[in-house]
Amino acid sequence: MKVEVLAVGTELLLGQIADTNGAWLGEQLALAGVDSHFHQVVGDNLDRIVLALRTALARADGVVVTGGLGPTHDDITREAIAEVMQVPLRRDPEIAGRIEALFASRGREMPASNLRQAEVPQGATPIEQRTGTAPGLVCPVGGKVIYALPGVPYELTEMFTRGVLPDLRRRLASSGSTGVIASRVLRTWGLSESALGERLAERVAALDEAGGNPSLALQASGIEGIKVRITVKATDPQSASAMLAAEEAEVRAVVGAEVFGVDAETMELAVSRMLLERHLTLGLAESLTGGLVACRLVAVPGASAWFRGSVVSYAPEVKWNLLGVPAGPVVTEAAAEAMAVGAANALGADVGLALTGVAGPDELEGHAPGTVIVGLVLPGEPPSSRHLRLPGDRERVRQMAVISALDLVRRALATQPAAGS
Amino acid sequence: MKVEVLAVGTELLLGQIADTNGAWLGEQLALAGVDSHFHQVVGDNLDRIVLALRTALARADGVVVTGGLGPTHDDITREAIAEVMQVPLRRDPEIAGRIEALFASRGREMPASNLRQAEVPQGATPIEQRTGTAPGLVCPVGGKVIYALPGVPYELTEMFTRGVLPDLRRRLASSGSTGVIASRVLRTWGLSESALGERLAERVAALDEAGGNPSLALQASGIEGIKVRITVKATDPQSASAMLAAEEAEVRAVVGAEVFGVDAETMELAVSRMLLERHLTLGLAESLTGGLVACRLVAVPGASAWFRGSVVSYAPEVKWNLLGVPAGPVVTEAAAEAMAVGAANALGADVGLALTGVAGPDELEGHAPGTVIVGLVLPGEPPSSRHLRLPGDRERVRQMAVISALDLVRRALATQPAAGS
Repeated sequence: MKVEVLAVGTELLLGQIADTNGAWLGEQLALAGVDSHFHQVVGDNLDRIVLALRTALARADGVVVTGGLGPTHDDITREAIAEVMQVPLRRDPEIAGRIEALFASRGREMPASNLRQAEVPQGATPIEQRTGTAPGLVCPVGGKVIYALPGVPYELTEMFTRGVLPDLRRRLASSGSTGVIASRVLRTWGLSESALGERLAERVAALDEAGGNPSLALQASGIEGIKVRITVKATDPQSASAMLAAEEAEVRAVVGAEVFGVDAETMELAVSRMLLERHLTLGLAESLTGGLVACRLVAVPGASAWFRGSVVSYAPEVKWNLLGVPAGPVVTEAAAEAMAVGAANALGADVGLALTGVAGPDELEGHAPGTVIVGLVLPGEPPSSRHLRLPGDRERVRQMAVISALDLVRRALATQPAAGS
Repeated sequence: MKVEVLAVGTELLLGQIADTNGAWLGEQLALAGVDSHFHQVVGDNLDRIVLALRTALARADGVVVTGGLGPTHDDITREAIAEVMQVPLRRDPEIAGRIEALFASRGREMPASNLRQAEVPQGATPIEQRTGTAPGLVCPVGGKVIYALPGVPYELTEMFTRGVLPDLRRRLASSGSTGVIASRVLRTWGLSESALGERLAERVAALDEAGGNPSLALQASGIEGIKVRITVKATDPQSASAMLAAEEAEVRAVVGAEVFGVDAETMELAVSRMLLERHLTLGLAESLTGGLVACRLVAVPGASAWFRGSVVSYAPEVKWNLLGVPAGPVVTEAAAEAMAVGAANALGADVGLALTGVAGPDELEGHAPGTVIVGLVLPGEPPSSRHLRLPGDRERVRQMAVISALDLVRRALATQPAAGS
């Protein structure tokens, strides 16, 4: 079964927002064993939405369309679907009632335009709205189907899971398709894309010769390193999982210790796991990264078990007064080490990590943008530091500094014994 | 002139990364006065890339294709373009030389697969590679054109600006098209999408009746509030600018003080401007947001003029020890106010802003997730606080807390006189 994704919104074409829904939906469809070969983006224009829907239905068995279901005059996805279905729109009194009740419960008067959201193409089934005001729609077109969902990401994800996935599964079952596509990503840090490609070349050739299942692909992810993606097709989730595990072992055998994580395991998750295993807490001192390391760390569930906090010492005086760094230049190895020790002391942490340097665009203390010094102190060891030269603009230097610093922590922790699990 | 955007990469379809290049290219094309009606995403499959290219060329005068130019076996955009052009690929010795020189200059051995990047469809013109190893391509197809660019964002943006935009401008000039599409976004905080729609309904109707130029559209941007987008078509940039200014005045007349910024002016930029106008510095104490407010503030160019730093007091002891908050519960108005005062003192700042509360998923001190207390202290005023109840999951609560807190600062600063400009 093939399902395409169509995102509606002139703001997407004009680049005012990026289409993150497409990525999320693509992942969900793959997990459900549905092929998705094309995604499209189209503006708020009736003829072009109709054309995009017809193009998708000609190539696939269904389409998930997102956006254009709101209350305003440029929300015309309902009209476009009705045209493709060749049916009129009718107002659904139940949906209208729910919209009115929602406004009443908030003690607010309902702008009349909200009732546009109660219009349903004849023959379509609404998916009840829960987090927003617009319902979704399941619209049969011959033996095929259009699913319409709101463009607001958290409304979309809830409604897809509740209203679309069960219908998709019914269609998959009745089509006799029971295949599963699954993939696993091995995240690496420290090798170039082509060097990784060379290491894997022999394995790729062997897989191609054997029919391309599993298959391997490399993906340069900038500040997240290079990913190796393993994709398998199997008859059921259990076989898929076994194939993935076997291929992961093959890849690890040639790629080695550069792999720091699997799938959603980011560098910060790897660091979190190692800190927990060693019963250690972490405190930060951040200068050029301005809190970016802390942001990434607190996004890890359960971070409060090992994360103490951060002193974002953007002004030099903060380094001297709060962290006990000797007054003087701050882009030095001595300052980075003093910051790490100061962070561990001030925050009551076992491990202290500090970043100082020059994000740019201007020089600082005679150092070029991209100069970054990472200071680190581990329990029972003297502080150490690492001098880095990072490429790119201000934002890229910051992001590279964050992952480079966390990778240093990861490698340093690996030399300390785990406390036993 | 119409140009479509095609992103190539199975990892985009599978949702392993979001297509941010499409958004950036869409914006650049609009600014250049080029219509872009459809964007597509397709996987690393030769037949489907060829189909997507042909579909785009049938509807438009050109296509910008991104991704699939790397050195590995799944990088097949070059092959697909050659098939669409119906020409063979030939190796370009100059490009090959540059790739070899790049590796030599880094003292690294070149994996042979890198020379795949020196293959060029006959009749195409390479765009010299500068930041990466893959060159771009300008490929004429009859009177139309395919531009191929690398998928790595910072390589793409540099190469588009240097190698594609000049060629596009030549084509625009020779097609006699001199029109410009321009848009401006007014950012609002504090009104629902439908309430904004009602306020603007009369103006929208009047514009529609007058031919739809300018046009207005609303865009719910979640934690960034609701945006009002004004779009104009004009003969030249000057007229476009005048039309945008006139329409902005019309919109402001009905929307009023809820507008906090224009175009790229985020909430943090608005706060930055107001601090600079008042010669005030800012210091933070962040608990549940874990450095997120600091991250947003240091992304503002020139932040060091007014941003002192942040104490990310994730552990309660850090609030007590570093910020001087009395030991005891930390999700209270008294604690938030003490944190704000403590941040201003510890960081040597004029204005202190503090956030404490519960991001979730678990309760804290008997408070439900979404409970957030913002503390604020301004020069010469006693500290104050605001209790918020925010919806959504952990990440959404954090993000909503950040913009709500910054909006409080913005509104509070508005009551303090500017120092004169």
